[in-house]
Amino acid sequence: MAKQKKAPRPKAQTPKGFRDYFGTEVTERAHMLKTIADVYHQYGFDALESSAVETVEALGKFLPDVDRPNEGVFAWQDEDDAWMALRYDLTAPLARVYAQYRNDLPLPYRRYAMGPVWRNEKPGPGRYRQFYQCDADTVGAASVAADAEICAMLSDTLERVGIPRGDYLVRVNNRKVLNGVLETMGLSDEAQAADVLRTIDKFDKVGESGVRELLGKGRLDASGAFIDGVGLSADQAEPVIAFLTSKADQVAKTFENLRGAVGGSQMGAEGIAELEQIAELLDAGGYGADRIEIDPSVVRGLGYYTGPVFEAELTFEILDEKGRKRQFGSVSGGGRYDDLVKRFTGQAVPATGVSIGVDRLLAALREKGRIGGTVQGPVVVTVMDRDRMADYQAMVTELRNAGIRAEVYLGNPKNFGNQLKYADKRESPVAVIEGGDEKERGVIQIKDLILGAKLAENASLEEWKERPSQYEVARGDLVAKVREILDLHT
Amino acid sequence: MAKQKKAPRPKAQTPKGFRDYFGTEVTERAHMLKTIADVYHQYGFDALESSAVETVEALGKFLPDVDRPNEGVFAWQDEDDAWMALRYDLTAPLARVYAQYRNDLPLPYRRYAMGPVWRNEKPGPGRYRQFYQCDADTVGAASVAADAEICAMLSDTLERVGIPRGDYLVRVNNRKVLNGVLETMGLSDEAQAADVLRTIDKFDKVGESGVRELLGKGRLDASGAFIDGVGLSADQAEPVIAFLTSKADQVAKTFENLRGAVGGSQMGAEGIAELEQIAELLDAGGYGADRIEIDPSVVRGLGYYTGPVFEAELTFEILDEKGRKRQFGSVSGGGRYDDLVKRFTGQAVPATGVSIGVDRLLAALREKGRIGGTVQGPVVVTVMDRDRMADYQAMVTELRNAGIRAEVYLGNPKNFGNQLKYADKRESPVAVIEGGDEKERGVIQIKDLILGAKLAENASLEEWKERPSQYEVARGDLVAKVREILDLHT
Repeated sequence: MAKQKKAPRPKAQTPKGFRDYFGTEVTERAHMLKTIADVYHQYGFDALESSAVETVEALGKFLPDVDRPNEGVFAWQDEDDAWMALRYDLTAPLARVYAQYRNDLPLPYRRYAMGPVWRNEKPGPGRYRQFYQCDADTVGAASVAADAEICAMLSDTLERVGIPRGDYLVRVNNRKVLNGVLETMGLSDEAQAADVLRTIDKFDKVGESGVRELLGKGRLDASGAFIDGVGLSADQAEPVIAFLTSKADQVAKTFENLRGAVGGSQMGAEGIAELEQIAELLDAGGYGADRIEIDPSVVRGLGYYTGPVFEAELTFEILDEKGRKRQFGSVSGGGRYDDLVKRFTGQAVPATGVSIGVDRLLAALREKGRIGGTVQGPVVVTVMDRDRMADYQAMVTELRNAGIRAEVYLGNPKNFGNQLKYADKRESPVAVIEGGDEKERGVIQIKDLILGAKLAENASLEEWKERPSQYEVARGDLVAKVREILDLHT
Repeated sequence: MAKQKKAPRPKAQTPKGFRDYFGTEVTERAHMLKTIADVYHQYGFDALESSAVETVEALGKFLPDVDRPNEGVFAWQDEDDAWMALRYDLTAPLARVYAQYRNDLPLPYRRYAMGPVWRNEKPGPGRYRQFYQCDADTVGAASVAADAEICAMLSDTLERVGIPRGDYLVRVNNRKVLNGVLETMGLSDEAQAADVLRTIDKFDKVGESGVRELLGKGRLDASGAFIDGVGLSADQAEPVIAFLTSKADQVAKTFENLRGAVGGSQMGAEGIAELEQIAELLDAGGYGADRIEIDPSVVRGLGYYTGPVFEAELTFEILDEKGRKRQFGSVSGGGRYDDLVKRFTGQAVPATGVSIGVDRLLAALREKGRIGGTVQGPVVVTVMDRDRMADYQAMVTELRNAGIRAEVYLGNPKNFGNQLKYADKRESPVAVIEGGDEKERGVIQIKDLILGAKLAENASLEEWKERPSQYEVARGDLVAKVREILDLHT
């Protein structure tokens, strides 16, 4: 054979913007996804897993630029030169699937989907190019009963995954009310309406007075730069402010405020009626204002959605990276979008849905200490005599058959210290030892590694020498003694 | 705003070679993955979820050809012009991860991984460009105890997902024995050895006599074409045949036959000793020949792996697409590969592992009727009066709180027939009806749709008219009556 030129060694490195997940990071997420799927299923939603790859056209990206074909998405050309891409969310694939299978799917179609999505964006701290989404959508239901159902389901889901009532709030707003407000303002053109929308989007950051300035002459931002305003008069801007600040203690009062804000707008009245219907339905289902509330200050997604908009916030405080207290914030958002399927079929199909940020929700549960406590590794059966591997193998089989996670040491057994170091790295609660002497006497040594570690930290030499964390028991008592120690530590 | 030129409507179509999965296709797979993960975990394996994207170098594809950069994988260039690709299996990413984190990972490192992989290959019937793999590997263990453990775990896994003992067999072979055979044959050069390997790979298809012909002068294949042989004499070919057919009823006899086949080869003797050790360890664990057997006729992967090789076969017969009986065949394979990490670090690290074809395993369980029976949809609460949506909402909430999957009809309620058609499409077992009249009388109608469907098929008009599948009960008995009907049908 001709000698091949050696390729240089590849770097062992996670691609930039991607992550690897280990152990409980994987299993805790899997557990959460299962819990969420159970709630969605209970509500009559059916699972859908579409392909991770879509045509760029189906995703709604057009005519790829040859120099940067994959702006925003990861894209390539297939054998027929068609541009393909990894999905960037689970909504665009739903639209494609619904358009494709609409004659076979029930109408309305409730579906849930969970899985990774990919974004070709500049990565940053906590911002990855691959992350999980977990969506539920109802396609083909025009009634806001569908929106109310999604809000109720979102509330149930948060409680089921371990966020207690009081630690979260689902807030509901409606784009149609905002449209009514814009109508009543007498704006000069669509460009000005777009400017107002953009300004509203900053409400979260700059607050009421900031929005007032930005709708008017403009505003000095924190960096000292002057941001030009939309140029409205104070009177003209008033309905927007009234809308954003309309939330009152009593929901009836909120609606009254909103009616003031939309003036005589038909569209605005319709939007308020929808919110009233949602509130009524949720009330009938027992979802009070401690779980779901009408809140016109929700602005996230108002530009994107066409009707009701919802957002779930965790209301407890955490310490940020600089040690300052702040609210944990949003873990889920959604709303009504009525034009997605139309791209494919020409027919508008009403749809509403929600997306849960699973990784943020996991982070919240970790923050609150509800998951990710002490992880217990497997029981490790050490190898004192490599010729008796079968004996050790029999021990782990016994332990596993008793439902105990266990493994035999598979490295080079020569150095016993390495075996204990290994058990330590595995966070093993128990090590089992059977040397030739023990074998002869029909006994085994069982080390309580958790107690051992505590003693090592705190005990005096005298105490340590007594080694009360190691027990000699009959070989036949292996399972019983190991279980006793495990029970002690759980 | 300037009017934008309308883009043509995208086609609603799953990309070629990809699939969408619906409902139980998704949940049954998720359930199987969870079951497998539980077994792996019990054996001390830790979860790993690496990024779906790797550098092309890390995957072991070199210098992409500019015209076909993505031969075999789906690849693209990132912002730094580096070639990235979707992983094509879970083993290459394991090698990268192990090389990258080796100082933090325990040694040996037992890990499992499950998820989609992507192949840029010509799709065909049952061959998709995206499919699930479910792998377990032990990195850093030179001892064949690691291989034996993988075989035992594979056996446990198959039984746990629902393949009863007797319906499967894990077969074990060893590349080193084959190397011994090749050594003893006195081949002229490496090219001839490669030819022999390629021929052995056809043993599954052409059988003993076919391999004999192919090792000698050559063979007329089924299509009438003549395939040139390796050109060995009958004597020279004999050790190969002896190796492939060495399996006897008693494992001791199998080993005796193998010793004959490897002659004086040191490598061959070592390989046999390894197989003997594996057999002994499995025996000690209670894994008899009804579950795992030494079988030198296993040739799949012999060319790829460097030591023990294993394959799990389902032994029951199914009917193929042409109605002919055939064995279901392989659902899993694996073996020892010692050079994967070396690509990154320069150091050889021993490793062994197994990959389960989850989709094939699911197909097998469906074939045997163990999953995918009658699917029960949700209870559907119909809408007789759209102004009383809150009443219907309250009913589904009651049902859900009682643990019953339920939904309210969210389509246009005008045509009641459409609501029942919807319930039918959803495979609902029960429909609940509350019109204005029922509301006044404090009752509801509960339709047993399963019984109703049976009556519709078999009953006479008279029987049908009596409608014994519909019950009027007090509103307060909603949950009790629905549960009674559900219990009847499960």
